[in-house]
Amino acid sequence: MNQLELIRQLAVKNNTKIVLLVLDGIGGLAMQPGGPTELEAAHTPNLDALAARSACGLSEAIAPGITPGSGPGHLALFGYDPLQYEIGRGVLEALGIGFELQPNDVAARGNFCTVDAQGLITDRRAGRISTEECTRRVRLLRSITLPGVQVFVEPVKEHRFALILRGDGLGADVEDTDPQRVGAAPLPAVARNPQSQRTAELLNEWIAQARHILANHPPANMLTLRGVAKDPGLPKFSDVYLLRAAAVAVYPMYKGVARLVGMEVIESIGDSPADQFETVRRHWDRYDFFFIHIKKTDSYGEDGNFDAKVHVIEQVDEALPTLLALEPDVLVVTGDHSTPCLLKSHSWHPLPIMLMARTARGDQVTQFSEAACIHGSLGRIRHTDIMPLAMAHALRLTKYGA
Amino acid sequence: MNQLELIRQLAVKNNTKIVLLVLDGIGGLAMQPGGPTELEAAHTPNLDALAARSACGLSEAIAPGITPGSGPGHLALFGYDPLQYEIGRGVLEALGIGFELQPNDVAARGNFCTVDAQGLITDRRAGRISTEECTRRVRLLRSITLPGVQVFVEPVKEHRFALILRGDGLGADVEDTDPQRVGAAPLPAVARNPQSQRTAELLNEWIAQARHILANHPPANMLTLRGVAKDPGLPKFSDVYLLRAAAVAVYPMYKGVARLVGMEVIESIGDSPADQFETVRRHWDRYDFFFIHIKKTDSYGEDGNFDAKVHVIEQVDEALPTLLALEPDVLVVTGDHSTPCLLKSHSWHPLPIMLMARTARGDQVTQFSEAACIHGSLGRIRHTDIMPLAMAHALRLTKYGA
Repeated sequence: MNQLELIRQLAVKNNTKIVLLVLDGIGGLAMQPGGPTELEAAHTPNLDALAARSACGLSEAIAPGITPGSGPGHLALFGYDPLQYEIGRGVLEALGIGFELQPNDVAARGNFCTVDAQGLITDRRAGRISTEECTRRVRLLRSITLPGVQVFVEPVKEHRFALILRGDGLGADVEDTDPQRVGAAPLPAVARNPQSQRTAELLNEWIAQARHILANHPPANMLTLRGVAKDPGLPKFSDVYLLRAAAVAVYPMYKGVARLVGMEVIESIGDSPADQFETVRRHWDRYDFFFIHIKKTDSYGEDGNFDAKVHVIEQVDEALPTLLALEPDVLVVTGDHSTPCLLKSHSWHPLPIMLMARTARGDQVTQFSEAACIHGSLGRIRHTDIMPLAMAHALRLTKYGA
Repeated sequence: MNQLELIRQLAVKNNTKIVLLVLDGIGGLAMQPGGPTELEAAHTPNLDALAARSACGLSEAIAPGITPGSGPGHLALFGYDPLQYEIGRGVLEALGIGFELQPNDVAARGNFCTVDAQGLITDRRAGRISTEECTRRVRLLRSITLPGVQVFVEPVKEHRFALILRGDGLGADVEDTDPQRVGAAPLPAVARNPQSQRTAELLNEWIAQARHILANHPPANMLTLRGVAKDPGLPKFSDVYLLRAAAVAVYPMYKGVARLVGMEVIESIGDSPADQFETVRRHWDRYDFFFIHIKKTDSYGEDGNFDAKVHVIEQVDEALPTLLALEPDVLVVTGDHSTPCLLKSHSWHPLPIMLMARTARGDQVTQFSEAACIHGSLGRIRHTDIMPLAMAHALRLTKYGA
């Protein structure tokens, strides 16, 4: 039996409150051998005191050695095995720009590219045109209409844009039009099944009109489409966990992924961790579960800005008493993946996790860090274990079997 | 999605070098309570210094409590789940004696046995005749010819031999002829599917002729065949990992398993660990990945010769600087399974592992031993996690999902 199905069978309601605080990209590495990680360098009296009364451990998003993107990383945190529940690239792209995808929408990621007089691709990214240049072309493309469907074109960044078709009965099993190499022409959109036939035809019609419009706008004089996809129709938090769940996230991608699993997105009163915690406080009575997403730890990790990442961790630490004062029954602090400043990218390293609850089993860990959490009572877990553990500690899971 | 398929999707090429140093049967046990294990008794300043700058942990070949043979142990080290990718006993037997199996060959393990006047088995191992006696009978059996196929008979050890049929279109789904008990006659070879019908007929014809030849050579006056099998056609290292991989092994079995996954086997300039490391040095530029197999740790473990096993560990330690001087980007040191001298056999105990890389997360472990590695930052892993971790630390895996 699939884990979500098991949890769905065991879940019960009660009056407990669960908080999942995600510091994106929190796991780190020493910048030089023997040096501190970002978490170790940060002054975090509140997080450390919380560690001392929590069960600590290390958690891995997907599997050893596998670095997750933000989508799979968060799905795993929410208890959905990302190798089983895949979210298409087009959907992630739409979520990432805050597009409110409806269940029947078909979304694709678009890339502007450069083609020569024969129509063969000479640059798959159109020289990475600026976002302004991208936006200018997207405005032109918005003039294209298609029979029986609404069309949305949205700029993303540089040469990337999102295309969404809204209409009934559109399948999303359509192959990429990107030939993945220069010297080849963009491919036609080809349906992989009969239900996606009309989608492919609509996309080809749209591409034909776009080609005409873009012809006079080199270097981005053509485009390719990838990752055609729909909302994967994930089981919802209210069904699986019987939780009224809210998300307090500042960046569109995380609001989007939270919506995919049925969370309500609460607008934060501001962008700082303190603002996000205060937002939770104001909505405390209306939900059973709060997902709080702190973005900047990851952003500064990607930048390789060690001091700035340390500072964000300290901001979270300073604001933590607001959250603690709410006396959640279960408070989990972790991240979706590591983003070590040393690597300037997401990484595969397991992340520290701590779970505070009346029922948490004590351990010797008194510091919230990668090295200290090795010795915690949670041991090594996978992200998909976190929600079952949080539910259990909230006494929201009945026993399995008599 | 199967792990190899996931890795295949994420793997990229770069210029890094990965070394997997396998000390066969390295894990051990104390000979008496409170005493040192083989690794703890050995003087290993170089391995310990390496542990201090590596991520350490414990790894398990298959699952808790499961003792692997050499084939499954190494498949797991190479990232192939041995419960999913099975290698037939006949193939392992052929590989173990250095027989260069071709993709269409059908191999079986043979046992000489003793039958009475009624043809009923009285000793399933023919009194464990000497290897010389085995070889003498194998020479007689080589006179047997079969229509349309080449036949190879090779002595293995004591009552064991290998039989290989080489020809086109031979299936290998044939049941054992060993009835697994005395008092019964050897069974006929029976095909489990139509493609293996001709193989069964050829084997029965061969057995009939062999029975005639052996009749006058008691106690080994008959034989049984087991584990009829072909090369399982495993995904290759170059496809899955995009690695040019080389194996430096002294014993045939390990060369054979390495060949099954597409490694090139380099002949070592000698049998000592120092010779094997020097061999790696001489071929350093030609490969991305080196599998080095040290056999004697296991051999002495099987003999129960504690001091000799300790001495081999010390030889590896002494030679280690040759390997370190090559500055591999990722160096993994572990074994395929434990072979405690106390047990004189393979065992199920997890083995110490250390992974050195610029991106390895530090821990407090400063000794390469079973007890010390418990506290390492790698934690408890499975052998099939090792290759994904090595690939990740070599920055040869892109992230999963956006």
